[in-house]
Amino acid sequence: MPLETSDLAIVIMAAGKGTRLKSKRPKVLHEISGRSLLLHVIAAAKSLVPANRIYCVIGHEADQVRHAVAHTGVHFILQAEQRGTGHALQIAKAHFAATGDVIPQNLIVLSGDAPLIRPETLQALSTFHAEQHASMTILTAVPSDPTGYGRVIRANPDAPDVTAIVEQKSLSPEQKNAPEINSGIYCFNTSALFAKLDLLSTNNAHGEYYLTDVAALLVADKQRVVAIQASSVDEVLGANTIAEMMHLDAAMRLATAHRLMAEGVTIFRPDTCVIDAEVQIAPDTIIEPYVQILGATRVGSDCRIRSYSVIHSSELGEGVLVRNGCILDHATIGDGAILGPYAHLRPESIIGPAAHVGNFCETKKITLGAGSKANHLTYLGDAIIGAGVNIGAGVITCNYDGVHKNTTTIGDHSFIGSDSTLVAPVTVGEGAYVAAGSCITDDVPSDALAFGRARQVTKSGWAATRRETIRANK
Amino acid sequence: MPLETSDLAIVIMAAGKGTRLKSKRPKVLHEISGRSLLLHVIAAAKSLVPANRIYCVIGHEADQVRHAVAHTGVHFILQAEQRGTGHALQIAKAHFAATGDVIPQNLIVLSGDAPLIRPETLQALSTFHAEQHASMTILTAVPSDPTGYGRVIRANPDAPDVTAIVEQKSLSPEQKNAPEINSGIYCFNTSALFAKLDLLSTNNAHGEYYLTDVAALLVADKQRVVAIQASSVDEVLGANTIAEMMHLDAAMRLATAHRLMAEGVTIFRPDTCVIDAEVQIAPDTIIEPYVQILGATRVGSDCRIRSYSVIHSSELGEGVLVRNGCILDHATIGDGAILGPYAHLRPESIIGPAAHVGNFCETKKITLGAGSKANHLTYLGDAIIGAGVNIGAGVITCNYDGVHKNTTTIGDHSFIGSDSTLVAPVTVGEGAYVAAGSCITDDVPSDALAFGRARQVTKSGWAATRRETIRANK
Amino acid sequence: MPLETSDLAIVIMAAGKGTRLKSKRPKVLHEISGRSLLLHVIAAAKSLVPANRIYCVIGHEADQVRHAVAHTGVHFILQAEQRGTGHALQIAKAHFAATGDVIPQNLIVLSGDAPLIRPETLQALSTFHAEQHASMTILTAVPSDPTGYGRVIRANPDAPDVTAIVEQKSLSPEQKNAPEINSGIYCFNTSALFAKLDLLSTNNAHGEYYLTDVAALLVADKQRVVAIQASSVDEVLGANTIAEMMHLDAAMRLATAHRLMAEGVTIFRPDTCVIDAEVQIAPDTIIEPYVQILGATRVGSDCRIRSYSVIHSSELGEGVLVRNGCILDHATIGDGAILGPYAHLRPESIIGPAAHVGNFCETKKITLGAGSKANHLTYLGDAIIGAGVNIGAGVITCNYDGVHKNTTTIGDHSFIGSDSTLVAPVTVGEGAYVAAGSCITDDVPSDALAFGRARQVTKSGWAATRRETIRANK
Repeated sequence: MPLETSDLAIVIMAAGKGTRLKSKRPKVLHEISGRSLLLHVIAAAKSLVPANRIYCVIGHEADQVRHAVAHTGVHFILQAEQRGTGHALQIAKAHFAATGDVIPQNLIVLSGDAPLIRPETLQALSTFHAEQHASMTILTAVPSDPTGYGRVIRANPDAPDVTAIVEQKSLSPEQKNAPEINSGIYCFNTSALFAKLDLLSTNNAHGEYYLTDVAALLVADKQRVVAIQASSVDEVLGANTIAEMMHLDAAMRLATAHRLMAEGVTIFRPDTCVIDAEVQIAPDTIIEPYVQILGATRVGSDCRIRSYSVIHSSELGEGVLVRNGCILDHATIGDGAILGPYAHLRPESIIGPAAHVGNFCETKKITLGAGSKANHLTYLGDAIIGAGVNIGAGVITCNYDGVHKNTTTIGDHSFIGSDSTLVAPVTVGEGAYVAAGSCITDDVPSDALAFGRARQVTKSGWAATRRETIRANK
Repeated sequence: MPLETSDLAIVIMAAGKGTRLKSKRPKVLHEISGRSLLLHVIAAAKSLVPANRIYCVIGHEADQVRHAVAHTGVHFILQAEQRGTGHALQIAKAHFAATGDVIPQNLIVLSGDAPLIRPETLQALSTFHAEQHASMTILTAVPSDPTGYGRVIRANPDAPDVTAIVEQKSLSPEQKNAPEINSGIYCFNTSALFAKLDLLSTNNAHGEYYLTDVAALLVADKQRVVAIQASSVDEVLGANTIAEMMHLDAAMRLATAHRLMAEGVTIFRPDTCVIDAEVQIAPDTIIEPYVQILGATRVGSDCRIRSYSVIHSSELGEGVLVRNGCILDHATIGDGAILGPYAHLRPESIIGPAAHVGNFCETKKITLGAGSKANHLTYLGDAIIGAGVNIGAGVITCNYDGVHKNTTTIGDHSFIGSDSTLVAPVTVGEGAYVAAGSCITDDVPSDALAFGRARQVTKSGWAATRRETIRANK
Repeated sequence: MPLETSDLAIVIMAAGKGTRLKSKRPKVLHEISGRSLLLHVIAAAKSLVPANRIYCVIGHEADQVRHAVAHTGVHFILQAEQRGTGHALQIAKAHFAATGDVIPQNLIVLSGDAPLIRPETLQALSTFHAEQHASMTILTAVPSDPTGYGRVIRANPDAPDVTAIVEQKSLSPEQKNAPEINSGIYCFNTSALFAKLDLLSTNNAHGEYYLTDVAALLVADKQRVVAIQASSVDEVLGANTIAEMMHLDAAMRLATAHRLMAEGVTIFRPDTCVIDAEVQIAPDTIIEPYVQILGATRVGSDCRIRSYSVIHSSELGEGVLVRNGCILDHATIGDGAILGPYAHLRPESIIGPAAHVGNFCETKKITLGAGSKANHLTYLGDAIIGAGVNIGAGVITCNYDGVHKNTTTIGDHSFIGSDSTLVAPVTVGEGAYVAAGSCITDDVPSDALAFGRARQVTKSGWAATRRETIRANK
């Protein structure tokens, strides 16, 4: 019995500074597994409700946080001064009042710095909340060592009802070993919550309004406060230091690698690969150690990606061989193409089937036709290159004249000799032949030969004479 | 008392699909530590008998498997339909009958997907089998958790005699904790085995002929069935998932690194290096992290291989420095040579002593003489280059005219100026000097100067005028 | 109450061979975490006393060891024949006598192959020695398994006084479980030590003079021998095999990464990075996996260093982006500069703020002005390049004529067309324009255009005719 979307909104606490990180970047913008902590949490929230039912409470470096996640479409609530989690909800309440946004029947509160929270867990939380007709449902966990955490005390270990949330230093002797901790993630009946917010006080060590105090207020009011345990401790834990974040990062990466292996992808040394969560790879593709596959990359079957290659937001067909150290960024690679080693394919590089781009080659905004080859030390930018073309070593498309970018067009089955420069805008026709070392400034018709180089002059004995002169002058 | 080769043949079970891998590649062709599972097993088998005494039972994707290992010289037996391990041996028996191959006195049965089996263990198995005058000798192991495995039940824990092999689900209460598992590796007296094969039934859960049932048939017949324990559990375990295979891969790699370190090679972060088992490295060579040394590579002493380099099937002399990110493939490197960073030496590159090949340089099918240098952004293919030669930045040998590959020959102590192109076939004599930016199409005699470039023209004020025009047109 | 420097000298035992390493390199010269074991120990020693109060006892490959650490300014004492630790001190005593060096009141003895010893521990050792008015103070440790180590036996577990140092094989039954081991690191009252050295005998299994025997001689003489425990076992343990050294290396590297993370640096996969101890990195810089930062490198804040880059002894400003696979060696990079991927910056490369050096570019001994760009396949050596300059693809400064290195000077806001060669010495003035494919041999005035390339010739139909000829000849 999941809640209806219209019954539910989500508030994400993202106003804090994260002092222990020693960083001027706000904590929720620190990045693990390819995106910020906050984006991980927003992604989980979006699994339950649309973006316009998600409210980020921002404060520390608010503009920076807003800018970093604005594309997700969530709302922002500014908590200009950070006076505690209860205060954040007071601001949220005021926001609903001021904007006239529909007040949801239920409100889930998430931590912007606990990025491992799973959609399934949030679903379970909201469902349990509804089933129990609770005013407040607390997500809890049972870590191996609960010391230091606020503890959730149940009336009866087998029943969901909670009597109190007690901070470490306020635990009574018999509570000292209470195993269940408060995750800081809750589902509230909104009106029950809002009714208690004004009763919170700052009468505590940090002088802040604590959201946890709402539990006691509700219990005193004979309202139901219940707890549900997360299936794993990890997903509710945040990270307080950079080292802890890096640990979460490695764990998430390894989980992605294991998911792909279970689907039939071979990943050598899976712990060494950096693969973003949204990457798709077909079975029978082999990933060598130290490969990075990032963004929304899709890789077909029977590919082999060799070590030290980094592929970002690209699309690879079937049977593609990416040799060592290639860098692909928003590139599209046809079936059976061979890249590298050390090929650098920049955005809008569209490589045809069975085409080759070889070592120390750079491409940008080009199409390279089927079976065409550019294997050595070339720069191809702003070019439309046909099929069956041979681009010699060191060929350069001069696409920039200091003012404009211009296009080079090369017809099918043409041959561009080594060390040629093609000064764009220029067209080489089908089947044409450009001699090595030529600077091509005019269009070359189909089937023509073009050359542009000086005739060789040889002066016999010159080098011997020079050597003697040098020797004599020493 | 090892068995004579003529007394022994080995059957390798390689017909299965490996459904849990989610791969269309047959399981035995999945690769760990640089070669397929099946090649690892064949290599172990070859330590006992010559290839013509080894029989691979193939079935799933039989042609692909046959093709992948045909070079080893083993026989193949086709099990077109896979109806169990007993069925595989029935087919093998028929094969001997049909071909007239000499029926060996003893038969070892190996799993094609248990690649860690060691020659020493197979030797121990066959020796024990002979000493015990057994009809069947079972290789066993004692894992930390035997649950799920078939258990080998001994009459007496201190005696080798086996009373039964019992599947997990058929274990009696007192057998539940039996610690010794069946590895699926056996040595048989061939005639004893063959006599029982026809008595196997498919009266079991999977409807298959089980080779394990032969044990009971032999025991019922008062023949000796004995067990010998492998020295480690690891070597008899197969891998059922890709993740498990990757785990074996890392373990084998690390073992290789540790063997080399024990021999005096320094390997920083040994767990990060990928070194094939047959690689030879002399003491006092230093391998930095993230290096790959593959195939039959041999590296001399006092070399240093820097990070991210990949060396395949190459030979390095003493005191070679391979800087970061070099890729060597079937290359030969002389003593004291310096490569890279980012040098790409393709097959048949023969680099002389104390020669240098520098950054972003590609070589293929060349000899580079002693002390010669090609340090920057060059492509050298199909070239014979003497000693003491200086190849400038950006030099290209134009070895391909669209039809043929042609050779460039460069004499000792010559100087090839930067950005020159040498249009092969062409010869530059000893001590000759090619001016920068030249396109060389004709032979250059020894000690001569050659140049082939246009004279510079300068138009004063042109650039200023152009800037003004551009500005005016904006 | 630390000892005064004038009261203290340090002797480092560095004469041994390290037979178990299987290496011809002396053990103390093996390298972990970027420097030799001996240099680590000397660095710790220097935290207590100046270099001229440190004496290295050298023997095996003495010249090599001396040469490797001479720059530290320590003294050397030659132990030509290695006859034990006691013998080493006998030689040291003779050295003081022969040279007239001031004999220090106290002497600390360190092992040259125990590189993890911390300055704090040495300070604690010498302070305790002084407080206790001891003749000999032994640094001890309590490992999880003391088997094999010499054991330090105390009269009373709660008192510092030691009754004996007992080798493993001489332990009495009740001493078998003695948990405290001798680290081989001591502080002596020098005159007490020197008085006993002549009483040592070689009446033992190895026929050597043992320094440990001094303890018994002092105790027999009613002098105080005391022990102080190191805070961790690790720092007193040496490494006996290369594998053990590699383990220390990884541990030291990881400790450096954790220190930097605690200071606000984000290091993804900290266990994969290779960062030297003296590297300084400002907070909010992000280090991707598989990065190496070596030597005395300093990195400003808000930089991002992408994977597979290696930065040695360089200085990076703020907000620098180092893309994948860059190699920097003694380079200086201005704020906001962008490098790579695969840029190779060699010594004396000074890159201005917001300048770009792109893929497959090599620089050496250049200045590149603010905002200038050299983005593709260039070699820039011995050049002074102004601000706002655009260096096209494939441009090469021909800095070497076979005899001398010459300088190229390029003025502000000039444009150097692709595939141009600049034959040094040569100057291109401010705002000048060099056409693509030009070989520039003469100075170009400011605001001028220069070109040096042949006019293009086109022969129509030539390529078609050639194809037919080739086809006909097949």
